[in-house]
Amino acid sequence: MPADPITHPEPWQQLSSEQVLKDRWMTLRADTCALPRGGQIGPYYVIEERDWAHSVAVTPDGQLVLVRQYRHAAGVLCTELPGGVVDDGEAPDRAAARELLEETGYASDSWQSLGSFYANPARQTNRVHVYLALGAVRVADQSPDPGEELAVLTASPRQVTDMIGAGEFSQGLHIASFYRALHHGGLPALT
Amino acid sequence: MPADPITHPEPWQQLSSEQVLKDRWMTLRADTCALPRGGQIGPYYVIEERDWAHSVAVTPDGQLVLVRQYRHAAGVLCTELPGGVVDDGEAPDRAAARELLEETGYASDSWQSLGSFYANPARQTNRVHVYLALGAVRVADQSPDPGEELAVLTASPRQVTDMIGAGEFSQGLHIASFYRALHHGGLPALT
Repeated sequence: MPADPITHPEPWQQLSSEQVLKDRWMTLRADTCALPRGGQIGPYYVIEERDWAHSVAVTPDGQLVLVRQYRHAAGVLCTELPGGVVDDGEAPDRAAARELLEETGYASDSWQSLGSFYANPARQTNRVHVYLALGAVRVADQSPDPGEELAVLTASPRQVTDMIGAGEFSQGLHIASFYRALHHGGLPALT
Repeated sequence: MPADPITHPEPWQQLSSEQVLKDRWMTLRADTCALPRGGQIGPYYVIEERDWAHSVAVTPDGQLVLVRQYRHAAGVLCTELPGGVVDDGEAPDRAAARELLEETGYASDSWQSLGSFYANPARQTNRVHVYLALGAVRVADQSPDPGEELAVLTASPRQVTDMIGAGEFSQGLHIASFYRALHHGGLPALT
């Protein structure tokens, strides 16, 4: 018998939670939850992540500041936006500016929030905060974290859309942030 | 002393790998890798995920078919695209059509690939495959997986961009897929 159409899905009720792994790199727990229409689900794995921040940084001549780095899980080189983890107690916009400077040596005096979204709300707790930084100029050398190897490059918005189509700018969450900036009207048109 | 600028980041060399967790819900391993400029990194956690597929399904009158469901890690209700896991041995376009039918009862005879991107290539192995399905019509009742509670709704592309701005359509990877379809030209313009 088909179920009645659902118009208002309800939250699950968390019955218990067990820590599976916690170290400097990952916090993983296993929840057991009661489902709203009966029954239980468990172990339901949740990764507790700190929020992330992305910078869509635009130079005075309309080029985006990008980084290229090795991403080990997929085993690929990715061209992407500068960004990283929001440290404990740090404001997301400060994290975006800090990561931009560390990863690329660029800085900006004009920061604007483009909102936020969830990285993967089924499995991870965290949000991605997106910022538009206009008039970005190179003011320093790179100072990436130990082990972080990043190439810095610049590209026009049109080139980024081409790289998305070619699978070269291939991080899904960075694609979302780039398009957010493009639709917000803060980038040069795709001409 | 500042490092020389890096122009071609190199892959890491995997030295060893240990399985941390493997069950029906999650496969997690911890790698130890040699870094190209010296030193090692480890444990570097990798989540082995099957690929995912998203459907941007458009009805004959230009409405997108969406679902709304509870996402436990973030503890939020999300409006998002129909989609799910590509089963072992299943073609991604078949997975997209299957998930659309199961989650919403809609089907289409016109499927077109909009490419793919990585879900989170630093931590996860998998890709997201995006499809545009035109002329989508309701042909059946929903038949979601046990425990899955989904509301089905339709909205214009303009309404979806408004929902993104309002934080209601808030899954980053689904935002990427929606904008891919919008830029591909397959959706009614945002008028």
